[in-house]
Amino acid sequence: MKQVVVVNEALKLPRGKLAAQVAHAAVGAFVAASTEVQQAWLNSGMPKIVLKVDHEADLIRLYDLALEQNIPARLIKDAGRTVVPEGTLTCLGLGPASDNELDKLTGELKLLR
Amino acid sequence: MKQVVVVNEALKLPRGKLAAQVAHAAVGAFVAASTEVQQAWLNSGMPKIVLKVDHEADLIRLYDLALEQNIPARLIKDAGRTVVPEGTLTCLGLGPASDNELDKLTGELKLLR
Repeated sequence: MKQVVVVNEALKLPRGKLAAQVAHAAVGAFVAASTEVQQAWLNSGMPKIVLKVDHEADLIRLYDLALEQNIPARLIKDAGRTVVPEGTLTCLGLGPASDNELDKLTGELKLLR
Repeated sequence: MKQVVVVNEALKLPRGKLAAQVAHAAVGAFVAASTEVQQAWLNSGMPKIVLKVDHEADLIRLYDLALEQNIPARLIKDAGRTVVPEGTLTCLGLGPASDNELDKLTGELKLLR
């Protein structure tokens, strides 16, 4: 069981902005999960990894695949008051879900360093 | 109503690591809030800001103050497998709580850029 957040690294967001967007995605996907899944993940120590893609289109593709497979998912769109144009997709929260389900979707992506 | 995450900027964590720690803090503090507060914050669009301190001791001080005031709070300790020594406090999630309550605690802190 884990949670994955995929970042749109084309934006090269500054650290504070990036962290806030990833946190939005994490909470957003968390509340989309069932109570049982939430609890199982919390009990296992909330494992989470942050991965990256280079194109906004990849976030949309992964989001659609996640919904097809009933994986909790939340796309985050920036409100655009500061760093990036309004409506830009900054990241995608996926899970909590099983490692296996998430690895099928995101196993090819690189870690965000 | 908002959520604040305070980062231990003495660590200068790399972007991906920082984002994961802030997300832990955000989810951790969120689950410490009452259902009513959670829902009110979700309905208002999950406002969140990321602030910084320069010393781990400041995270502990803010955490203790938050608990005294019944503000949902979660200190995040790094598991230490990669970037920082095991047990280092990386950040503190506060709220959701009222802007007023959180500003009293963190109003003097600087934004993490």
